[in-house]
Amino acid sequence: MTDFPGKDVLGAALTRIQAEVDAGFDALLPVPGDARARLVEAMRYAVIGGGKRVRPLLLTATAELLGVDRAVAVRASLAIEAIHAYSLIHDDLPCMDNDAMRHGKPTAHLAFDEATAVLAGDALHAFAFEVLADPALSGDPFTRSELVLCLGTASGLNGMAGGQMMDIAAETESFDLPTVTRLQQLKTGALLGAAVEMGAILGKLPAEGRTHLRGYARDIGLAFQIADDLLDHEGDETAAGKALRKDAAAGKQTFVSLLGADRARAQAAMLVDQAIAHLAQYGPEADILRALARFIVARNH
Amino acid sequence: MTDFPGKDVLGAALTRIQAEVDAGFDALLPVPGDARARLVEAMRYAVIGGGKRVRPLLLTATAELLGVDRAVAVRASLAIEAIHAYSLIHDDLPCMDNDAMRHGKPTAHLAFDEATAVLAGDALHAFAFEVLADPALSGDPFTRSELVLCLGTASGLNGMAGGQMMDIAAETESFDLPTVTRLQQLKTGALLGAAVEMGAILGKLPAEGRTHLRGYARDIGLAFQIADDLLDHEGDETAAGKALRKDAAAGKQTFVSLLGADRARAQAAMLVDQAIAHLAQYGPEADILRALARFIVARNH
Repeated sequence: MTDFPGKDVLGAALTRIQAEVDAGFDALLPVPGDARARLVEAMRYAVIGGGKRVRPLLLTATAELLGVDRAVAVRASLAIEAIHAYSLIHDDLPCMDNDAMRHGKPTAHLAFDEATAVLAGDALHAFAFEVLADPALSGDPFTRSELVLCLGTASGLNGMAGGQMMDIAAETESFDLPTVTRLQQLKTGALLGAAVEMGAILGKLPAEGRTHLRGYARDIGLAFQIADDLLDHEGDETAAGKALRKDAAAGKQTFVSLLGADRARAQAAMLVDQAIAHLAQYGPEADILRALARFIVARNH
Repeated sequence: MTDFPGKDVLGAALTRIQAEVDAGFDALLPVPGDARARLVEAMRYAVIGGGKRVRPLLLTATAELLGVDRAVAVRASLAIEAIHAYSLIHDDLPCMDNDAMRHGKPTAHLAFDEATAVLAGDALHAFAFEVLADPALSGDPFTRSELVLCLGTASGLNGMAGGQMMDIAAETESFDLPTVTRLQQLKTGALLGAAVEMGAILGKLPAEGRTHLRGYARDIGLAFQIADDLLDHEGDETAAGKALRKDAAAGKQTFVSLLGADRARAQAAMLVDQAIAHLAQYGPEADILRALARFIVARNH
């Protein structure tokens, strides 16, 4: 990873949230003493000990800006990470991307079997909403139902799942830049946006006061996907822990194929600057969010 | 179907709720003018114009006992039916039960393709929680988050998904009667119980006042599964609209294999009587719930 301002701050924040998320899943997903054990083992395999935890970091860093209790923010971040993890399990299935490696280890359907992988994804999906609706998260039912609505919208037809459908269509249709942008806003941008939004909901920030945070989230979401396309184009499979250059092989239009690598790189850098500008009203307390924006284009996986 | 008291009342109630559920899904799932169209078409294929709508009937009939506005109860019933429909789509996949027919038409992965079927199930799963958390359902956030928690619990690891995992294990392990009972309580009983519970939540019935309704739901849930096993053992594939006798072929223990058909039939009849006894405090306003209990053992599919 190339150097960038705030790299140390971000590294410490990532290490911290990674440990908290692992501990949270470990506590909330004990292996039962019956035939469901295999299901819970598959769920744990998918959510513990892997992934950068970008969404939990976004959620907790936003919540911290607004003075939210850390334990509450971490608990809510398990919900969004469970949604992210379920989507990866289903995405990796033979009938979807048919991927063999994820986070440097065999994908869930290979480590277990396809039926268990489908069910583990489904169970993580339900788990996310159970966590958010549970009074153990927040005593305020309005907060709980706002969180559910936010995450449900970001993960369903008008968010991640809708984006994945467009992504499948991209293999046979030749999308233009506005359509690829829309696809990516749904497929990955919606959930990254939800991470920030959920932090704002926990912080009881009124919707009309969230404009700058939404701008930040939208910009880093798009930058994240452009950087992903660049990594897919130029990256190293070992560092990535997964197969690369599948989009080009499938004939899919990406930001890199549409813009060329140089213009894509410039566009990502511009979006990162713009994302950071949205945080102008904050002092050093927003340094983690600023560093995360820079990390997106500096990372090598 | 053999005759039973209340058959006409139930028939009219089923016809009514079937039309309401179809109209509700039609209104909430318009086909978008982009590449998500195929996803929404698959969702609509799975939720419109098929199924007996037992869960929506249970929810709305319970809600009606408690004076809940009909439109609100119908809307909440779309959520539980969406969960039921998503579970059938995923259950029918080649890696799960590999079924070709459902409700008398090709299963979703055959009518569309496997990837679209996985995504349509996922999108219906998220849709269910969006519906429940939306202020359009209820202005009371406590009601909304209680509904989400109830449905999330009933569909996840400690409900339907957990039961499905046990069901897969049942192909290789030889379960005894208590374990088969537990499996079925999770796999189908939890969601039937949630239908009644969600009606009670909408009716703002305190948890301590729900004992009789929970007893009713538990008894009909078990009776429903015993009747399903009997139909699987003795039924007609054309009437069922799906393949039968797969459990026996897979060597799975069922209520019929463990008890024999005669004792299973007697047990189901006893449970139906017991379910109806739980409704003793109500007059004719509970006749739909009583007739539904009787229908469970009288139906031929």
